[in-house]
Amino acid sequence: MADTEGKVITCKAAVAWEPNKPLVIEDVEVAPPQAGEVRVKILFTALCHTDAYTWSGKDPEGLFPCILGHEAAGIVESIGEGVTEVQPGDHVIPCYQAECRECKFCKSGKTNLCGKVRAATGVGVMMNDHKSRFSINGKPIYHFMGTSTFSQYTVVHDVSVAKIDPKAPLEKVCLLGCGVPTGLGAVWNTAKVEPGSNVAIFGLGTVGLAVAEGAKTAGASRIIGIDIDPTKFDRAKNFGVTEFVNPKDHDKPIQQVIIDLTDGGVDYSFECIGNVSVMRAALECCHKGWGTSVIVGVAASGQEISTRPFQLVTGRVWKGTAFGGFKSRSHVPWLVEKYMKKEIKVDEYITHNMALNDMNKAFDLMHEGSCLRCVLAMHD
Amino acid sequence: MADTEGKVITCKAAVAWEPNKPLVIEDVEVAPPQAGEVRVKILFTALCHTDAYTWSGKDPEGLFPCILGHEAAGIVESIGEGVTEVQPGDHVIPCYQAECRECKFCKSGKTNLCGKVRAATGVGVMMNDHKSRFSINGKPIYHFMGTSTFSQYTVVHDVSVAKIDPKAPLEKVCLLGCGVPTGLGAVWNTAKVEPGSNVAIFGLGTVGLAVAEGAKTAGASRIIGIDIDPTKFDRAKNFGVTEFVNPKDHDKPIQQVIIDLTDGGVDYSFECIGNVSVMRAALECCHKGWGTSVIVGVAASGQEISTRPFQLVTGRVWKGTAFGGFKSRSHVPWLVEKYMKKEIKVDEYITHNMALNDMNKAFDLMHEGSCLRCVLAMHD
Repeated sequence: MADTEGKVITCKAAVAWEPNKPLVIEDVEVAPPQAGEVRVKILFTALCHTDAYTWSGKDPEGLFPCILGHEAAGIVESIGEGVTEVQPGDHVIPCYQAECRECKFCKSGKTNLCGKVRAATGVGVMMNDHKSRFSINGKPIYHFMGTSTFSQYTVVHDVSVAKIDPKAPLEKVCLLGCGVPTGLGAVWNTAKVEPGSNVAIFGLGTVGLAVAEGAKTAGASRIIGIDIDPTKFDRAKNFGVTEFVNPKDHDKPIQQVIIDLTDGGVDYSFECIGNVSVMRAALECCHKGWGTSVIVGVAASGQEISTRPFQLVTGRVWKGTAFGGFKSRSHVPWLVEKYMKKEIKVDEYITHNMALNDMNKAFDLMHEGSCLRCVLAMHD
Repeated sequence: MADTEGKVITCKAAVAWEPNKPLVIEDVEVAPPQAGEVRVKILFTALCHTDAYTWSGKDPEGLFPCILGHEAAGIVESIGEGVTEVQPGDHVIPCYQAECRECKFCKSGKTNLCGKVRAATGVGVMMNDHKSRFSINGKPIYHFMGTSTFSQYTVVHDVSVAKIDPKAPLEKVCLLGCGVPTGLGAVWNTAKVEPGSNVAIFGLGTVGLAVAEGAKTAGASRIIGIDIDPTKFDRAKNFGVTEFVNPKDHDKPIQQVIIDLTDGGVDYSFECIGNVSVMRAALECCHKGWGTSVIVGVAASGQEISTRPFQLVTGRVWKGTAFGGFKSRSHVPWLVEKYMKKEIKVDEYITHNMALNDMNKAFDLMHEGSCLRCVLAMHD
């Protein structure tokens, strides 16, 4: 049992005081976990574009000051009353998408979108008392996505933490908290790509590459990567992309380019950018009669997708996915196992390693095409 | 063998000379069927909103002069070279959606949208010589949807005609050429509604009522009918609708009304009007995580559907359907059998019976809420 149990822990965290201003490494007080809560020592966290989106101030639901971060791994420090599924010392991955196994959503068998703690995590607090567990000199700091992994210690709901194999390297499997499962699951769970399919992937960042890997393992025969940055193409080959299209090389709309390349369009397309115009192109490059397009990227608030209804009436299907349709607590440990058995890549997405103090540098890196994932060691 | 075989037949047809002008009953010359074609004596035809849409001039692909009509039944008069699946005397239903069983679409096992004759039927001619079989004093009259059933005789491609049980009453089963299968199939084939589902139907015309019947037979527990004409509600009960909502009775957007009524939204929704704003409402009244919306109605050309991508990312699915996903030549005879066994309604959709001479009156009737289907006897 940790000697910190039941006590406030003061530790370092990167605090976003205001939108679009550099994060500040602060001494943050982390309250003990209450009933149904788990305090986790975060060892490694990666950065994801959703962190940057909220940080930018464009997310109307973003609350400041807050502690961002949602792709991480760590060890349970202590647990609150009634927590049964994890114990201090367990290796875990925090899950921004909860899985309570009790709510209407979890029981439906049709979705991974657990609703149990959404009302609290959506407004940056914990469900038990509708308050934050983070504070600096008594001033509360909001949680983010129910995870707030840019802190050396965080408190999460017990339904938002997946216990994993303690032999798994946390500095790697932290990536299984968001981007990689999102891409793999978009293919395996949402689209259900079949062997022999043609696939188009718009955007070759981490999520797009994970889609490529998912499509390759699903047996897709053609995997077309589309990006305006051709320097990404070489790397993408390692993830399964078989051919590349740069929209800038063509005068025609990109959907027409893909239709021409594939004798009528692809069987499956994936938008991994968050651009609503690209979402339309991704739908419209699908084959008449059966082509399915999956929106994986997160668009800026208020933006809308459009198309002619004829696109759907003639058999195309428009879907979306969140966390790739994976049920977090059930499937994240399974993904860790697949990684341990070398059935899925993880290491290959990590292009940079840094420490907590480099947080702002890591945010800058995200805008560079060469960066996929930057993993920060939180206790160096 | 008919003594008209191989000869031009002169017969009555309702000709649309210009958009939005009354149809004119004319003596039309109908050329003999060429290779792969079938000449059909049309006994009964119904009117559908797609006929009215093209007639109105709003369909940019509409060609004039033409012979409209696509929901009908008749008897094969003669066949062209190479036609094997029907013989003179066979009772048939013309199918605007072909089924060749050979093209990429037919062989895919994923769609009913046969592509074989589309290039010809889309421009009002026959595939063999890219010409029309209809003329008046040597002036060609365009075909429509590959069917042109507002003529006492028509010529269709052999892949566009379904042979049916000769015992079936043609004055009834003519409806199985379009609206009724479209609604039933939207439920059975496209949405695949499961027992216990909640369903919302926007628009309670023939197609909406067929959706209701399809949902009822699929075991849906709540079938919510939405229409701005409350006089349609009583009739809709006979088709399975269990409750009614008139958007005019509410200040809230209709999607919110349905969400409130159903604790989060319906499992399946169907747009059976062709209004792009309603299509959006139909999607957005679906339950987070799994709700599926099917576009059945045909919107005016150039109009677009929109929504926030978040609607899809949080698990809603947007689809469409054409002829309800039924493969025409395979499934229309099966639907006729289901009607003969009293497993599906047909008679109940027929609210008016007239003769070919009443064509313009029948068009006017379509705009009245009391009219579902008007069946015209073509040889009275």
